[in-house]
Amino acid sequence: MLEAQTKDLKQEQLIVKNLGQCEYESPVLHDRPHDWEDYRMTSDDDRIQIHIQINPKKPTDTSLSFEKAGARDKVFFNGPDTKVAIVTCGGLCPGLNNVVRQLVLTLYHTYGVDKIYGIRYGYAGMVSDSPHPPILLTPDTVEEIHKHGGSILASSRGKQNPEKNVEFLEKLGVNILFAIGGDGTLRGATDIADAAQKRGTKIGIIGIPKTIDNDIPLVFKSFGFETAVEQADLVLNCAHAEARGVPNGIGLVKLMGRHAGFIAAMATRASGDVNFCLVPEVPVVLDGPKGFLANLHERVSTRNHAVVVVAEGAFQDVMGATGMHDKSGNPVFNDAGLFLKERIQQFYKDKGEEVNVKYFDPSYIIRSVAANGHDAVFCSDLGRYAAHAGMSGKTCMFVGYWHGFFTHVPFNAIRGRKRVMRPTSSLWRSVLNTTGQPVEWGR
Amino acid sequence: MLEAQTKDLKQEQLIVKNLGQCEYESPVLHDRPHDWEDYRMTSDDDRIQIHIQINPKKPTDTSLSFEKAGARDKVFFNGPDTKVAIVTCGGLCPGLNNVVRQLVLTLYHTYGVDKIYGIRYGYAGMVSDSPHPPILLTPDTVEEIHKHGGSILASSRGKQNPEKNVEFLEKLGVNILFAIGGDGTLRGATDIADAAQKRGTKIGIIGIPKTIDNDIPLVFKSFGFETAVEQADLVLNCAHAEARGVPNGIGLVKLMGRHAGFIAAMATRASGDVNFCLVPEVPVVLDGPKGFLANLHERVSTRNHAVVVVAEGAFQDVMGATGMHDKSGNPVFNDAGLFLKERIQQFYKDKGEEVNVKYFDPSYIIRSVAANGHDAVFCSDLGRYAAHAGMSGKTCMFVGYWHGFFTHVPFNAIRGRKRVMRPTSSLWRSVLNTTGQPVEWGR
Amino acid sequence: MLEAQTKDLKQEQLIVKNLGQCEYESPVLHDRPHDWEDYRMTSDDDRIQIHIQINPKKPTDTSLSFEKAGARDKVFFNGPDTKVAIVTCGGLCPGLNNVVRQLVLTLYHTYGVDKIYGIRYGYAGMVSDSPHPPILLTPDTVEEIHKHGGSILASSRGKQNPEKNVEFLEKLGVNILFAIGGDGTLRGATDIADAAQKRGTKIGIIGIPKTIDNDIPLVFKSFGFETAVEQADLVLNCAHAEARGVPNGIGLVKLMGRHAGFIAAMATRASGDVNFCLVPEVPVVLDGPKGFLANLHERVSTRNHAVVVVAEGAFQDVMGATGMHDKSGNPVFNDAGLFLKERIQQFYKDKGEEVNVKYFDPSYIIRSVAANGHDAVFCSDLGRYAAHAGMSGKTCMFVGYWHGFFTHVPFNAIRGRKRVMRPTSSLWRSVLNTTGQPVEWGR
Amino acid sequence: MLEAQTKDLKQEQLIVKNLGQCEYESPVLHDRPHDWEDYRMTSDDDRIQIHIQINPKKPTDTSLSFEKAGARDKVFFNGPDTKVAIVTCGGLCPGLNNVVRQLVLTLYHTYGVDKIYGIRYGYAGMVSDSPHPPILLTPDTVEEIHKHGGSILASSRGKQNPEKNVEFLEKLGVNILFAIGGDGTLRGATDIADAAQKRGTKIGIIGIPKTIDNDIPLVFKSFGFETAVEQADLVLNCAHAEARGVPNGIGLVKLMGRHAGFIAAMATRASGDVNFCLVPEVPVVLDGPKGFLANLHERVSTRNHAVVVVAEGAFQDVMGATGMHDKSGNPVFNDAGLFLKERIQQFYKDKGEEVNVKYFDPSYIIRSVAANGHDAVFCSDLGRYAAHAGMSGKTCMFVGYWHGFFTHVPFNAIRGRKRVMRPTSSLWRSVLNTTGQPVEWGR
Repeated sequence: MLEAQTKDLKQEQLIVKNLGQCEYESPVLHDRPHDWEDYRMTSDDDRIQIHIQINPKKPTDTSLSFEKAGARDKVFFNGPDTKVAIVTCGGLCPGLNNVVRQLVLTLYHTYGVDKIYGIRYGYAGMVSDSPHPPILLTPDTVEEIHKHGGSILASSRGKQNPEKNVEFLEKLGVNILFAIGGDGTLRGATDIADAAQKRGTKIGIIGIPKTIDNDIPLVFKSFGFETAVEQADLVLNCAHAEARGVPNGIGLVKLMGRHAGFIAAMATRASGDVNFCLVPEVPVVLDGPKGFLANLHERVSTRNHAVVVVAEGAFQDVMGATGMHDKSGNPVFNDAGLFLKERIQQFYKDKGEEVNVKYFDPSYIIRSVAANGHDAVFCSDLGRYAAHAGMSGKTCMFVGYWHGFFTHVPFNAIRGRKRVMRPTSSLWRSVLNTTGQPVEWGR
Repeated sequence: MLEAQTKDLKQEQLIVKNLGQCEYESPVLHDRPHDWEDYRMTSDDDRIQIHIQINPKKPTDTSLSFEKAGARDKVFFNGPDTKVAIVTCGGLCPGLNNVVRQLVLTLYHTYGVDKIYGIRYGYAGMVSDSPHPPILLTPDTVEEIHKHGGSILASSRGKQNPEKNVEFLEKLGVNILFAIGGDGTLRGATDIADAAQKRGTKIGIIGIPKTIDNDIPLVFKSFGFETAVEQADLVLNCAHAEARGVPNGIGLVKLMGRHAGFIAAMATRASGDVNFCLVPEVPVVLDGPKGFLANLHERVSTRNHAVVVVAEGAFQDVMGATGMHDKSGNPVFNDAGLFLKERIQQFYKDKGEEVNVKYFDPSYIIRSVAANGHDAVFCSDLGRYAAHAGMSGKTCMFVGYWHGFFTHVPFNAIRGRKRVMRPTSSLWRSVLNTTGQPVEWGR
Repeated sequence: MLEAQTKDLKQEQLIVKNLGQCEYESPVLHDRPHDWEDYRMTSDDDRIQIHIQINPKKPTDTSLSFEKAGARDKVFFNGPDTKVAIVTCGGLCPGLNNVVRQLVLTLYHTYGVDKIYGIRYGYAGMVSDSPHPPILLTPDTVEEIHKHGGSILASSRGKQNPEKNVEFLEKLGVNILFAIGGDGTLRGATDIADAAQKRGTKIGIIGIPKTIDNDIPLVFKSFGFETAVEQADLVLNCAHAEARGVPNGIGLVKLMGRHAGFIAAMATRASGDVNFCLVPEVPVVLDGPKGFLANLHERVSTRNHAVVVVAEGAFQDVMGATGMHDKSGNPVFNDAGLFLKERIQQFYKDKGEEVNVKYFDPSYIIRSVAANGHDAVFCSDLGRYAAHAGMSGKTCMFVGYWHGFFTHVPFNAIRGRKRVMRPTSSLWRSVLNTTGQPVEWGR
Repeated sequence: MLEAQTKDLKQEQLIVKNLGQCEYESPVLHDRPHDWEDYRMTSDDDRIQIHIQINPKKPTDTSLSFEKAGARDKVFFNGPDTKVAIVTCGGLCPGLNNVVRQLVLTLYHTYGVDKIYGIRYGYAGMVSDSPHPPILLTPDTVEEIHKHGGSILASSRGKQNPEKNVEFLEKLGVNILFAIGGDGTLRGATDIADAAQKRGTKIGIIGIPKTIDNDIPLVFKSFGFETAVEQADLVLNCAHAEARGVPNGIGLVKLMGRHAGFIAAMATRASGDVNFCLVPEVPVVLDGPKGFLANLHERVSTRNHAVVVVAEGAFQDVMGATGMHDKSGNPVFNDAGLFLKERIQQFYKDKGEEVNVKYFDPSYIIRSVAANGHDAVFCSDLGRYAAHAGMSGKTCMFVGYWHGFFTHVPFNAIRGRKRVMRPTSSLWRSVLNTTGQPVEWGR
């Protein structure tokens, strides 16, 4: 899985930008007990090796590495003089409030920053003519927000004129912008950084990658993903009950996954009740004796029911483009779930046989719940490491996660890269094992 | 609420049919401890008064009453010689497995019935040419089924030729048929009873009313309803998070309720986050300054978001009939949720304003979960009382629930009656209070 | 079940006190649409009949009735001039926040009351020297509180000098006190009412009965009870898993129920996995061949495991009194769960056999969660009806629930009464059926 | 965190034993589609590097590595001729059934093994005089078991005479034993392997490490841990509600963690409501102005309430040894939760101040639930990789997890090692950050 993401990656692309020399002693140092001899702060020299699977017969390139996240001895900004802004962009994802909360708590309590602005409604709230001015965030205002789904700041899609964003931030006096969002958000953040640099304004831009599809390159797992899988698993239980409850019952569940079928794959494995899992990475042939429909029919004929998971990005090649784009610039997809439902029903109709397709489209239910225990902890790590990175003067980078370590990843490193599930990966192999579906769809 | 259901109801319609004289002493008597002086079995003379709200200035008819459910001193069937069949019909509902389980446990342990057949796939499984023969149910096979949603027997819609059903039951030697299903199922059960009578076969037919919409007349609450409300409440939480997460966000949730908006109303009240609740009983005017769309727009303009609940049976007058019927004979409805989504989007488009409608259609998720604690207990009562009724030779009746008591209700008593939510009821008044929506929609 | 509660009850005890003549037209009238012909407000003449089970051969006293709850045509207090206080007393119970929230919403939105004081920490916060002054409650402050367990007002046990309470209320200018609490709280409320009357102060006192044990007389079900049963059911699942997971495993679960075993009984029925349910109402014999321990041993010998539920009030006769009382004046009980655990272990030790008792004491987990959907609706009814009662000048009464209707019950009516589960009730019979335990414990 | 676990670890300790030369082609090869050019099976040469944090200024030993788990080209056993046994030992843990299920599915479907014996009640069921004979496991018998907590095989503590275990396995004709259990279980497995070798019997012994405390060395995370954290988080919510609900309320929660406070730490972080987290790794001073009690008092005085988490292994130094051991040979601990409760109450009593300690001991509730989505997937990986390892003739090893990869770890490699949470780790630092508790307890 890693090879594709890191193909042609060069170590110089992994060097993180700094706003300048760190001159202030970090307040984190102060609460180190006198006898913690082995304790040391993280240094810019600490790095996490990218490729760690080795084989004496097949030499591995072990030279690539990420900068390690963590509190530094010295910081660039003096907390009490510092102003920061936090913005959440794009669709909801479990854990947004947790990240915001931890940013506030660490900036406030650890670094003494008490001017923390919450931008309302994404980048749209970061222009001077927005009807929704920023709100001041304090430990009190964020105390309970992580118990709820959604984003206390609200969100929106699309970017604004980066010049206007920078103007707005300048006017507020913001020194660091924390941007929580996906691919497009991080691209937008880069533009803002560029615009700021042009104007000679020193604003640190720190990203926290948000993608419920888990498809950000150079990142093992994004926040909210585990919660999404857990929720999807509950829905698959329902689909199974519905499928078994009627003659020739088919529980058809569309799950998130535009380019990458990670949620579909993981939920399939968590459930154990799924018979077919269709993802964008593995093209599906519908017709013909070795196609999906014939296989589905065979399964239903022998076992009376089936559960089918389809990622939203599947069948896009077959259905053709809509030609539309959302405000984030992402192409609007045709609905893979409805398409498949229709095709299954037509197939049975042509055969003159009864079928009962129960269709589930639970995306909003999955992404708008509060983070589970795992993601609560993960988000708080992301928030804390982002705060450390921002205060130490890092910029144009996001907080990543690799082999169990938190890392600094330059925005530029992921440009042009994709993270998808390889059909030869052990994850997909285990899906095939779980479902018993064919390795390949033929005609 | 009660007046409408009981209008022109006559006491003679409430007399329950018996297969004949009860001659066997009930085994329930045996485990009565010697000193339970005040304990007595339920008698056919025990009745539950229907109208209990009295007013000295407005005389109430207190003469109507239901036969009380419960174990009788004497029973018609001798357990070890008795064979019974259980069938589940229509759509899934939380608690189906609980009812089946309790029927089996009471029949087996209390009455010694060990030939309990589970009919597969509804009435379709009760004909000799069904590909799915009945399964034998024992305490062991049902031990854990109540922990899961769905129906272990599976279900189907539609009825069969009643003659063929009776033939099938005769061949199996069935003495009592327990039919768990809705309106149509109970009508089907009546036909089967009639056919049996014509053939001179003594088969007791006992219904357990199943309607997730809670719309069976002469019954206060049907099983699965509380679980459905609890599940719907979780979805409304999600809708609220989604609505608040975007500019001009509208969380639009379609809930069950073809003729009666009980789930929509109760979930609205449980949530506390709903701003508009639209049900079949209260016609909605969409357009005009006092219409729904203008009210919605006003709410979103001032508070940036709104949550809207629409019962599936709303707008049927506006949308017109599809002309189609499902296998149960119910008219297929146009999709009220998609209709409303479309109309809202068009309204904003015409205004040239942004809107973000997040649409939820959670019906299958709501109805396929396992029963919650309340419904688990309720279903076990229904199952036990149905077993008592069946063994004591009652027929053509279902187990009802009225003012906190379980009752025997003849199938005929509900013929031609409807149970809907009156707009003047305290339930609907409390919905209006919770949402703050107008009492009437004008133009 | 009803007989015991209503024994020697006289109709005059059910007459509700009024502070005086109602002179203001109720604002509830205003939002009645012109064509709701059949709509009328509730009148003091509307009453709910208490005994509704009738039998021509055994005449029933149908003369007893409760005053029906609901909004009146005329009210005693003019909303904008009115000040109210809300207090929560005793232990936590799911739904406290829901009741508080609905009180605030109805008083504020329907009646225009905008001076709503939340008393902190129970009656202890209703004296002038309390360190915790009341907080002002508005629709904004209560908007989200029902999503959380506990009480936003906090609570305490015990009463204060009623004179001092009245002084405090007078100083605040409070016209109506809403007291949410149990038996002791309602007694305390009576004392406050008496003290107020002596001083010639017109303060309406409205109770909302809170008892997770469901043991308030003349009330069918108290709020939080269904949620408690649902939570207890989850714990019983765990006890079952633990019991089955070890040799001779016994899952022993102590549940709430000081004098009444309703939670134990209902959770036992919801679960279906419980083999023995021990409640205060049915004395248990431990030793001897027909005693509990021998029965337990027999069960474990044949099935390798058992699940036992014990209500906290069981075995009090055997264990003897602690002689202590809590601040509410309730006797402190010996721990029935630990007692039983000890006795079981000793029994097996004496036999020289292995046993693995897994002991669960989940009370705090059960009572501190948020209300489920059912209780959310139920609590909002209680809050709304309490607001109506208070505004219409009722006093020294609480909002009850009987046969599906909300009622007004004078504090005095429950004095000296108890609500327990009769061993001959159908509820307990069904527990015996579910567990298969003996009807009587012998020696 | 890693240094301590890997101190003095030598690469030769990481070499996995094999039963012999693999001669059969793996059936896994068969379902490889023709054009999966980049697909290859895992080889014994594939290894996962242990230390991956590098620093040019502080050379890291990158030479240590684990053998990578995965299907091999060739296997030692021919499926249809192979018999295997599965045993679960020690306390319950979420996911046991998932591991068992996946073992059965992979062995049966992938390798064609159809003699899969489930040993009942741990090693106690693996002797010929056990009253509980093994059960045959098939895909049908395990189909739904992962939806339930506990272990379908049941478990027990303690080991048996290894000779007798081997005799038993020989009689059954078992070729591979899969042992799911903790430290003691793996030691027991080593003894069985030794005994088998002495007798010249070729039985592969494959472990799957089970420890809800997450304290197995050389393993990043053990199964069930995430579920445990999620459950503990729910309990902490309740503790928070209880603490806030009374004057001077303290919610005191004892969580698992005998030597390692991982659950306490992670649950504390997930919750965000905890003020003090006490773990075995950080000695607590109770008394004195800088001690825990004074800090707790200060917190309660200013904020009226506090939430305290204590791991069961805390205070063992203070409380002294019980001198007892359980059947697994683990010392029985004094109860840290009750000890602390007592000390807190005494402290307040001495001060003459009111305190309300609400004590929670939720261990059984936490460990007996079904695995959440994350653990469901994790367990299925463990089961599948264990099956591959077993079939390819590996022995005396368990399936580990390191930096995101599944590994083979020889039993011997963990002998004498401990996995605890270092007080200087970023995990513990983040706990300190979350709670705000002092870094050190003084006097």
